[in-house]
Amino acid sequence: MDEKALRALLGQVKTGKVTLDDAVGKLKDLPYAELGYATVDTHRNLRFGFPEVVLGEPKTVEQLLGIVGALVERKQTVLVTRLQPDKAEALVARFPKGQYHPVARIFHLPQRKVKAGRVAIVTGGTSDIPVAEEAALTAEAMGADVRRVYDVGVAGIHRLLRRREEIQECHVAVAVAGMEGALASALGGLVGIPVVAVPTSVGYGANLGGISALLSMVNSCASNVATMNIDNGFGGGFYAALISRTKGRS
Amino acid sequence: MDEKALRALLGQVKTGKVTLDDAVGKLKDLPYAELGYATVDTHRNLRFGFPEVVLGEPKTVEQLLGIVGALVERKQTVLVTRLQPDKAEALVARFPKGQYHPVARIFHLPQRKVKAGRVAIVTGGTSDIPVAEEAALTAEAMGADVRRVYDVGVAGIHRLLRRREEIQECHVAVAVAGMEGALASALGGLVGIPVVAVPTSVGYGANLGGISALLSMVNSCASNVATMNIDNGFGGGFYAALISRTKGRS
Amino acid sequence: MDEKALRALLGQVKTGKVTLDDAVGKLKDLPYAELGYATVDTHRNLRFGFPEVVLGEPKTVEQLLGIVGALVERKQTVLVTRLQPDKAEALVARFPKGQYHPVARIFHLPQRKVKAGRVAIVTGGTSDIPVAEEAALTAEAMGADVRRVYDVGVAGIHRLLRRREEIQECHVAVAVAGMEGALASALGGLVGIPVVAVPTSVGYGANLGGISALLSMVNSCASNVATMNIDNGFGGGFYAALISRTKGRS
Amino acid sequence: MDEKALRALLGQVKTGKVTLDDAVGKLKDLPYAELGYATVDTHRNLRFGFPEVVLGEPKTVEQLLGIVGALVERKQTVLVTRLQPDKAEALVARFPKGQYHPVARIFHLPQRKVKAGRVAIVTGGTSDIPVAEEAALTAEAMGADVRRVYDVGVAGIHRLLRRREEIQECHVAVAVAGMEGALASALGGLVGIPVVAVPTSVGYGANLGGISALLSMVNSCASNVATMNIDNGFGGGFYAALISRTKGRS
Amino acid sequence: MDEKALRALLGQVKTGKVTLDDAVGKLKDLPYAELGYATVDTHRNLRFGFPEVVLGEPKTVEQLLGIVGALVERKQTVLVTRLQPDKAEALVARFPKGQYHPVARIFHLPQRKVKAGRVAIVTGGTSDIPVAEEAALTAEAMGADVRRVYDVGVAGIHRLLRRREEIQECHVAVAVAGMEGALASALGGLVGIPVVAVPTSVGYGANLGGISALLSMVNSCASNVATMNIDNGFGGGFYAALISRTKGRS
Amino acid sequence: MDEKALRALLGQVKTGKVTLDDAVGKLKDLPYAELGYATVDTHRNLRFGFPEVVLGEPKTVEQLLGIVGALVERKQTVLVTRLQPDKAEALVARFPKGQYHPVARIFHLPQRKVKAGRVAIVTGGTSDIPVAEEAALTAEAMGADVRRVYDVGVAGIHRLLRRREEIQECHVAVAVAGMEGALASALGGLVGIPVVAVPTSVGYGANLGGISALLSMVNSCASNVATMNIDNGFGGGFYAALISRTKGRS
Amino acid sequence: MDEKALRALLGQVKTGKVTLDDAVGKLKDLPYAELGYATVDTHRNLRFGFPEVVLGEPKTVEQLLGIVGALVERKQTVLVTRLQPDKAEALVARFPKGQYHPVARIFHLPQRKVKAGRVAIVTGGTSDIPVAEEAALTAEAMGADVRRVYDVGVAGIHRLLRRREEIQECHVAVAVAGMEGALASALGGLVGIPVVAVPTSVGYGANLGGISALLSMVNSCASNVATMNIDNGFGGGFYAALISRTKGRS
Amino acid sequence: MDEKALRALLGQVKTGKVTLDDAVGKLKDLPYAELGYATVDTHRNLRFGFPEVVLGEPKTVEQLLGIVGALVERKQTVLVTRLQPDKAEALVARFPKGQYHPVARIFHLPQRKVKAGRVAIVTGGTSDIPVAEEAALTAEAMGADVRRVYDVGVAGIHRLLRRREEIQECHVAVAVAGMEGALASALGGLVGIPVVAVPTSVGYGANLGGISALLSMVNSCASNVATMNIDNGFGGGFYAALISRTKGRS
Repeated sequence: MDEKALRALLGQVKTGKVTLDDAVGKLKDLPYAELGYATVDTHRNLRFGFPEVVLGEPKTVEQLLGIVGALVERKQTVLVTRLQPDKAEALVARFPKGQYHPVARIFHLPQRKVKAGRVAIVTGGTSDIPVAEEAALTAEAMGADVRRVYDVGVAGIHRLLRRREEIQECHVAVAVAGMEGALASALGGLVGIPVVAVPTSVGYGANLGGISALLSMVNSCASNVATMNIDNGFGGGFYAALISRTKGRS
Repeated sequence: MDEKALRALLGQVKTGKVTLDDAVGKLKDLPYAELGYATVDTHRNLRFGFPEVVLGEPKTVEQLLGIVGALVERKQTVLVTRLQPDKAEALVARFPKGQYHPVARIFHLPQRKVKAGRVAIVTGGTSDIPVAEEAALTAEAMGADVRRVYDVGVAGIHRLLRRREEIQECHVAVAVAGMEGALASALGGLVGIPVVAVPTSVGYGANLGGISALLSMVNSCASNVATMNIDNGFGGGFYAALISRTKGRS
Repeated sequence: MDEKALRALLGQVKTGKVTLDDAVGKLKDLPYAELGYATVDTHRNLRFGFPEVVLGEPKTVEQLLGIVGALVERKQTVLVTRLQPDKAEALVARFPKGQYHPVARIFHLPQRKVKAGRVAIVTGGTSDIPVAEEAALTAEAMGADVRRVYDVGVAGIHRLLRRREEIQECHVAVAVAGMEGALASALGGLVGIPVVAVPTSVGYGANLGGISALLSMVNSCASNVATMNIDNGFGGGFYAALISRTKGRS
Repeated sequence: MDEKALRALLGQVKTGKVTLDDAVGKLKDLPYAELGYATVDTHRNLRFGFPEVVLGEPKTVEQLLGIVGALVERKQTVLVTRLQPDKAEALVARFPKGQYHPVARIFHLPQRKVKAGRVAIVTGGTSDIPVAEEAALTAEAMGADVRRVYDVGVAGIHRLLRRREEIQECHVAVAVAGMEGALASALGGLVGIPVVAVPTSVGYGANLGGISALLSMVNSCASNVATMNIDNGFGGGFYAALISRTKGRS
Repeated sequence: MDEKALRALLGQVKTGKVTLDDAVGKLKDLPYAELGYATVDTHRNLRFGFPEVVLGEPKTVEQLLGIVGALVERKQTVLVTRLQPDKAEALVARFPKGQYHPVARIFHLPQRKVKAGRVAIVTGGTSDIPVAEEAALTAEAMGADVRRVYDVGVAGIHRLLRRREEIQECHVAVAVAGMEGALASALGGLVGIPVVAVPTSVGYGANLGGISALLSMVNSCASNVATMNIDNGFGGGFYAALISRTKGRS
Repeated sequence: MDEKALRALLGQVKTGKVTLDDAVGKLKDLPYAELGYATVDTHRNLRFGFPEVVLGEPKTVEQLLGIVGALVERKQTVLVTRLQPDKAEALVARFPKGQYHPVARIFHLPQRKVKAGRVAIVTGGTSDIPVAEEAALTAEAMGADVRRVYDVGVAGIHRLLRRREEIQECHVAVAVAGMEGALASALGGLVGIPVVAVPTSVGYGANLGGISALLSMVNSCASNVATMNIDNGFGGGFYAALISRTKGRS
Repeated sequence: MDEKALRALLGQVKTGKVTLDDAVGKLKDLPYAELGYATVDTHRNLRFGFPEVVLGEPKTVEQLLGIVGALVERKQTVLVTRLQPDKAEALVARFPKGQYHPVARIFHLPQRKVKAGRVAIVTGGTSDIPVAEEAALTAEAMGADVRRVYDVGVAGIHRLLRRREEIQECHVAVAVAGMEGALASALGGLVGIPVVAVPTSVGYGANLGGISALLSMVNSCASNVATMNIDNGFGGGFYAALISRTKGRS
Repeated sequence: MDEKALRALLGQVKTGKVTLDDAVGKLKDLPYAELGYATVDTHRNLRFGFPEVVLGEPKTVEQLLGIVGALVERKQTVLVTRLQPDKAEALVARFPKGQYHPVARIFHLPQRKVKAGRVAIVTGGTSDIPVAEEAALTAEAMGADVRRVYDVGVAGIHRLLRRREEIQECHVAVAVAGMEGALASALGGLVGIPVVAVPTSVGYGANLGGISALLSMVNSCASNVATMNIDNGFGGGFYAALISRTKGRS
């Protein structure tokens, strides 16, 4: 609310066009609601067109049932990430409209249809697939049309070359790779769209738990590569879907 | 070229609809040309709608005059980054249509008009401005409508809050910050658009030449933040302009 | 004991005003007592107005019963931190006046009332709460009036803004946050009191077990932020309570 | 402004007790003013009782003359840190009431008297003195009564022991040390007041530019030690003075 | 064997004073014997007056029984370090003259008496005792007269001061400490003998598994401090005993 | 396929000497085949004379049976590395011609005989043997004549000296060592053949999980040393065997 | 000299077939000669077929003239690396048969012709050329037939693809690349020969002076990649030439 | 002073055998004297038999003249390390009995003769000589009989082997080496005396300014190796001379 709007509102208060209660409401209203052990940021849905995502790993079954219940009540899409199978069972039992994806470790309960663009999810190896699926399901939950291009790392670059056009047709690509993470640069050099790089902790020894891949991606010689945290499949899918939505904007 | 297109082309060779020379041309043509000391990737213009950007710092004046001349001849826009003032003088003398921006250390010679979306460039402090200007000029050269929001770091968060709506109206924002790099997360939490985080080496001691800001941005608790290399203003501007172009796609 | 006091004491020895035994006692008395496997620093109570805190994690039940018994005998407040539940049971069984707080993993047996100032404990997310509770209970055990402000991280900065005044009224604030640890800077920029930053190991990948948050806090652009070790809730609460006591000094 | 105050204000607008202009003023007034290349945070004076400190190093003489002029005009105390001698000359020439301290590299122009508590500044060696003086002058500028205890590092611990009581009488101590930074722990173990540790880059080889001292201080076995950034004398002095002011609060 | 000795030997071969077999023996004899899965370096006993020490942790019970048996057969003292309790049982059952020390995790079977000097083993806290005992038992096995000074860290420096003379009377001291490892510098500053610093992994967070203590010790401002690997109690005791033996040399 | 060959092929298409189908086959054929969850790179056999090696650790028994079955069907040698014993049982049960080596954790099913040169595998200690065996079996599977020289580290350099000539006679040596990894430099200084250095994670504390040995090897003062990833026995054996095959080339 | 040869020699001494002086000579002769400030390892020529290479950077002109003179006198090829231009002038003036290569910073004075195999030197960008030329000239000095393939990094992977066969025909390839160093993996995946990876310090920010490229190469998903130190062009060329010589061995 | 001595002294005060002044003197006397900008620790001479060494690098000529003058006046040996040539000139001009050693950058003015044992200083290469000379001159100033064994690194291990006995005869050896620092382990494995390892910053790239050599030495597989800071020649010489003095003790 800028000064002009503020002045107008206060003018309306003075002249009685707006009741004092309404004005207080407009000026005080804070876009969230406290729920005890968690403060659900309901404003997020407005900002992103997508509600707050729940990180399942550190929460108890009771907390999860409570939070998911609150979201379902408000008719909001639910996405619980990094969810262990035993907790997932309890959620599915209570909310049978939701579905658990064990590879991606995601619980998803869709409510209203949203639309985003085309997102390619590309991996270097088969060990990167769990992170890739977390990205893919997140992007799909946000309305994206996802194309999976798995196990096409640079150790056999011809596998990637053959599928270049398919990726280029998307609005954005997510490159998921561990070890030396060279996939991000190779992919960035092949396509003319934004590439979201997700380093994974796949590898051993000098991979430093994914730091090597992260550094590789941050130092990419391709200018169309930006990087997420290690193993952050959710973030990669979210960011890519967000970019893909730009297509609908004026 | 997929199998179907290949089969069609070969069929046309057989029936004589396409001459053997044309077919050879189509199949062998490699999208670049060697220029001696450098291999200009002319295919890039096709991929990105923007020619290869020239890194000025390590090149001699002679090399720069040669490369820029080759691009001007092909009627391509020229962008030379990280260019020292003395070399810039020589370029401006030879190519008076070009302009040198000393703060951003960029030489720019525009040829044809391109169009991109709205990009906000936001900085934490005044020391981050050179990197921010590199981003801003790069994005503008790519056709973006750039809005500068400088010196609004989290040490005085109200400065950022006041300009939130202005940033939200853009298609994408670039957060340029050094020290602890908290601007990226704060900005990401305020707006519903993709944020491209550019850590800077501004700071001292435990800032580790920008690594602290980089780690801060990569670990951001806001999901709409992806990260570029330290002091990579060019990359930040390029990536943001690329995202902003998505708006024109089907 | 400075030279003057020393000279006076010796003079009293010479003139017989002080017996030789008393003088020996005053000069030799070292402010601690050996208890076999541990040297309890009873002088600490004098220095800090608070006895030595016992780190529970590496000690056996027998050692803990012995040390706590010795402190109780001397009518000293007992605080055992990082205490596993099974060991806590044994302590509570033996010393029913004490209480175990499972989230903070603290055993507390208060003896005499001490008074300190107002301390705000602020967290970025819900996963930071165990460290925050360790801080809160420690500060309370030292006599502080603690105000908990949880789950108000920068990804939704408006949640923090609403509670600014409440925090400002305290003498000192403790900022507990993991991931990129931006909360410390944001809070430091909002209030005019000392902020004690406690980085947590909450996060994954490039959070480096809390090092990223630590670096972020040490590099804070806000001048009123000082930093403790990762997950050191006890230290954060102790340091804050110590600061808050300054209000009572001349 | 909380809801109650807001409701009262709006009520007064409605009844005409407060003019619309006054209400707008109260609600819109943002606590800073843009000065072109810098946004001076005038609200800081309110928060801390001390205006924004100017980092001199990266700024041009023109920028410094402008900013200092603006502050002097508003009758605010000026503190410029990390100021090179040649720029200092220009400042002193224009503002003869100000003084330059070459060891601490600080320009100080006091305006109104403020009062803080007693602060001890302690260093491990003589090479740490420039950082210590930056801390000492900053604390003095904020009204603190500073006591310097220099060159008393742990390699000759008896030097520190002799001055223990002098330090203990202060409200807070700043420990400035490079190399292994053991001074902070040794001092923390000797006194019952908050210790602000400032690691310095003094040393070579495995000191990693001060990181070793920083780690040493962050890992301190003394609970009354919190840490600032490497070579951050200003921060150490500021934080200590801020703590020392707690003595005057209710 | 230098040239002169070599020439003499060959002369004796020529004149028949030394048989060809003896000469071959002298020239070819390599100071070790292969035992299948291990190459026991019997020459070590000559070099150090102490046989090769066996690292117990990674070896199977069968391997340990074999190696220890071979050493016992050769009437050599046996020292097995980092030995798990269950393997120790098997060793003690077979070789009842040997003894297992559970805190130090050392199996020791002495054969002939050796003599070394006086070694002080000093620790910062009680958690450092296992590493200290490994050092103490190793030094004792090498004939040293060991004095234990435990739990005298810098957080209560007066505890260390009281025992200064006792340590000073030794030929060498071993400082065992974790967290910030300041004990090594404090001890080095108090005594005029060589100090062998052994960092431990005791601590958490920014202690980096002992790297912080290691860096602290390597950067010590005291010149009489040299450093061993983290948790290397055996090395600390071995090196100290070796130094203490210098007293008997010409 | 270069331009000349391409032109010839197209000419044959035009004149009908080559059918359209054959031409499509030749031009479209991509040297790999998708098998669902994995893309087996059959072209590798052509490039290296050795099929793709299967990393056993992260794969399920079902996936392993499928992949190995596919390779056996194509009469290709099978090498599964980092294979857990329980999965190995299932493989051996199904494919009795294959053999599992528990120390090296390798499953090997040879098909056709290949020939390579002589490879020496040298280790610093006995704890490095599992990595060394992984290297040895890989090299043998690739046709190399392997000579094992184990437990000859620099702490007893005479053990290595005695076997110098034996190593020198090989075409290449693999140096496998943990802790400080000095073996690589010592070996490099003794022989005139390429040395492939494989750092291991053997050690503790400041070995940083093998990073210390890796750095040591990369910084080797011997010019004939190149380095593999930590614990990468497979890579060391593969690279060495590859070098040794050079002997057969023109 | 093994036992059998030793026994034979001693037998000949005994029977007088070999004089005592000759035997002493054979047994004592150490393969190097002290030259005052340097110990030239003349044995190296025997081991590698190539004399010790002189590191020019830290040596004075006088030392260089002395060492080069000694080598020339012994009719040995001279290779001085990392040589500054001004020192090179003095060398060329004294030894006009030698030649200085300013880009590679190498002084080369060939004596006898040696023969090695075919070596490809491949770079990611133009900034990597100085390191690549150091490698190329070293390999050529060792008799290799070098093929330069420059500026073919993964940001435009088609440039590398076109030259694949040319590289494959070599016995070994050297991949020289900075930034994210992805070239090594991409090249390794394309050819079936050993790849020697040389990371360069080209880049900025998170490239950590070449550490990022080094980590990338060490973690390569291609098994035929081994890594040298950062900017170690000499080592890369030396190692590659050494491998290429294997082709001549039995 | 223990309790018994204290009681005796006080008894003597009481009976008048000791005057009050003498008792005060004995109890208060602190072993140092403040000299303005520096606190010279005169007690050090007592502790170590060697006065405090002056670090020349950061001090001004005036400070150096003052400190050296004070020491000369007290008839104490002077050792100024890391002294720049221009400052050295001023010292030599004023104190002509002192001598400056440019390679070691040490100013030495001996006063009374002290005696220590035999110390071997061993280097890996010629570039390590400046650090080695700093060690050698320091040890000589402390009365040691120094034997220099330079340029005998592991890349040509036979050079070191030939001089083994010469080193073994010393009481202690100092191993000075950069790059991978393997000399320390190789030397430790050859001799039965304490080895003091001094890593140097000699090398480039992944040597990390000496950190690689430091890690290598700390992880040494030889138990008789302890480590100093990078380039700390003074410390290495001091520590070795201190060890060598043990030979004279009871």
